[in-house]
Amino acid sequence: MQNAPVSGPLEGVTILDLSRVLAGPFATMTLAGLGARVIKVEVPGTGDDARAIGPFQDGRSLYFEGINFNKESIALDLKDETDRKTFEALLAKADVLVENFRPGVMDRLGLGWDELKERHPKLIYAAASGFGRSGPASDQPAYDLIVQAMSGMMSITGERGGAPVRAGVSVGDLTAGTYLCLGILAALFRRASTCRGELVDVAMLDCQIAFMEEPLTSYANTGVLPGPRGTRHPSIVPFQAYRTKDSQLVIAAGNDQLFAKLAGALGKPELPELEKFSSVRKRFEHVDELETVLEEALSERTTDDWIAELTAAGIPCGPIATVDQVLENPQVRARNMIRQTAPRQDGSRSTVIGNPIKFGSYPEQMEPLPAPQLDQHRESILAMLATQE
Amino acid sequence: MQNAPVSGPLEGVTILDLSRVLAGPFATMTLAGLGARVIKVEVPGTGDDARAIGPFQDGRSLYFEGINFNKESIALDLKDETDRKTFEALLAKADVLVENFRPGVMDRLGLGWDELKERHPKLIYAAASGFGRSGPASDQPAYDLIVQAMSGMMSITGERGGAPVRAGVSVGDLTAGTYLCLGILAALFRRASTCRGELVDVAMLDCQIAFMEEPLTSYANTGVLPGPRGTRHPSIVPFQAYRTKDSQLVIAAGNDQLFAKLAGALGKPELPELEKFSSVRKRFEHVDELETVLEEALSERTTDDWIAELTAAGIPCGPIATVDQVLENPQVRARNMIRQTAPRQDGSRSTVIGNPIKFGSYPEQMEPLPAPQLDQHRESILAMLATQE
Repeated sequence: MQNAPVSGPLEGVTILDLSRVLAGPFATMTLAGLGARVIKVEVPGTGDDARAIGPFQDGRSLYFEGINFNKESIALDLKDETDRKTFEALLAKADVLVENFRPGVMDRLGLGWDELKERHPKLIYAAASGFGRSGPASDQPAYDLIVQAMSGMMSITGERGGAPVRAGVSVGDLTAGTYLCLGILAALFRRASTCRGELVDVAMLDCQIAFMEEPLTSYANTGVLPGPRGTRHPSIVPFQAYRTKDSQLVIAAGNDQLFAKLAGALGKPELPELEKFSSVRKRFEHVDELETVLEEALSERTTDDWIAELTAAGIPCGPIATVDQVLENPQVRARNMIRQTAPRQDGSRSTVIGNPIKFGSYPEQMEPLPAPQLDQHRESILAMLATQE
Repeated sequence: MQNAPVSGPLEGVTILDLSRVLAGPFATMTLAGLGARVIKVEVPGTGDDARAIGPFQDGRSLYFEGINFNKESIALDLKDETDRKTFEALLAKADVLVENFRPGVMDRLGLGWDELKERHPKLIYAAASGFGRSGPASDQPAYDLIVQAMSGMMSITGERGGAPVRAGVSVGDLTAGTYLCLGILAALFRRASTCRGELVDVAMLDCQIAFMEEPLTSYANTGVLPGPRGTRHPSIVPFQAYRTKDSQLVIAAGNDQLFAKLAGALGKPELPELEKFSSVRKRFEHVDELETVLEEALSERTTDDWIAELTAAGIPCGPIATVDQVLENPQVRARNMIRQTAPRQDGSRSTVIGNPIKFGSYPEQMEPLPAPQLDQHRESILAMLATQE
């Protein structure tokens, strides 16, 4: 097989990727970042639905480009006999098949796990869906918004006393994609000793539930129902955003030492001496009053001033960065988290996100390969199959 | 070694876990859910800092219980000579060491990766920190709130036109924990063929940047700066919460067919015929007007009525569930996502969250083991070391 574009621990692993839009492609982007070769199998004509989701630039979907770099593309009609043979030949060489259709779709295509495991006993079959392959809602469709709402995530996100809002990114999809990767990697690890394939079944709703462990177990065990939390932590104080002279900053001073340092830096060293602010539990009980007291001090100076001063004093704090500021953050840059792809034939490049998993033994990829055009790698993939048969 | 409590693909893998509070313990909880044996090494006296974070029940921290079930605990003072020998003996048997100290702390203890890799060349050393092991902010402390603020996540979460809020759960920690698992599993997979250890370096900020791929790449390539998004998707319409007669519901009808179905179900079949609502792009341009039109229709009936009707019509929709409702959701129950631990000696049990990764070949764990008391497994761990020496 052709070399994968990234040097990483999954070198030599081939992923056949039927997934579309977000959860599945985010998973396979992550696997490509770890060194796997990812071959996208797309519907002829239109390809991955994400190719039609905006915003667009020079006719390309940025939504698609951001999660499909470092991949190859071949267009195959799984209901066409010739294409189907090509797909089966690819399956025979693949380590992992990824799909995110609704449960049942692959079975109706004759490509369900029950059939494939007979023909390809070493294959890892990884499926992501809204609700999973079992349970009363299994065959219902879901999208990020639906699982953010149904998991309770929206009910605790928003202004205190205000309406629920959605976390600003599609955490429902991204979390499911990440857990799908975990299942795939665990199965690959096991297969190294058993030579046996595996079924991995991940539901977006389940993954949101996993991320909701704190409010769910807290309510289940105490009966105290949480609502939208604003910027505050549910039990640690002070741990929220505060107003300054010109904007806001966040401060996380969750233990007594940090609170004493904070009180000193704000010129109010007496605060920890007051009974009402003397422990995390007391500060939690008087969280509104403490907010007033701290904002009184913080209103004297600007956010930038305070961040310099508090950081020097060892108090965890930071600005509420807007997206343009994030791109300029020296730490983000130093960690190679913002990347320009290699140029396309027309010389254009895209900005994409780096791999957040850093290894001691593998160099970071300097220039990710831009997302493929639909069917871009047909020739090389068919040639690979021909020479290896 | 003693059997791990969960049957899964990581059977036989031993994790030595020095991590505290959230990102690290969430990672090792996930690994335990995949079949690994996890031994928490805690500070004598107080143990994991999370043991002091509320809410509390019967003197136990629910915060701690929710992310430390299925683990063992031994208290060791890494500056004490005898304890240090025990720790080294455990290291010799471990496959993975997990820590989430600030970079440099383990080096000062003489337990940094550079030293350990000489003594334990097969060891996988997995470190999670706020900013990672490199870059100008490397040695600064960070907590969830800080990375949600610095990554831009807060800047796009909240009411449209309103103030930034924090996603309701600590996605900064949970995401870092999940990526840490990915790095560990990829390194374990590789080690199966190379017999070589690995360093895994994960930063909370980097992981939030990875989850921010859509707004960051969209802004970097278009220059359009996003603000708080309310419940809306940034480019797909309709895809948000709408008011009904009694509350709200979410609807995700992102393509033309679903929009036509939705218009029909709402008794407004003419909507897709109108030029202004005729495509996703047009609907995006007229998103406010469409909201008014849809809410006019939705205000006629209750959320429950609409969900029954729209679900029957195949339109993705759902309630904005509160945490109590989530616990009763039949799909969540059917997927075994809410679990009662096995009883403690005093007969008490805790509610914890199930494993969201389902495998074809492994049964689900019926009763997770409750989180350990500090040093609960000292005797069995020391006995294990003695018999195997």
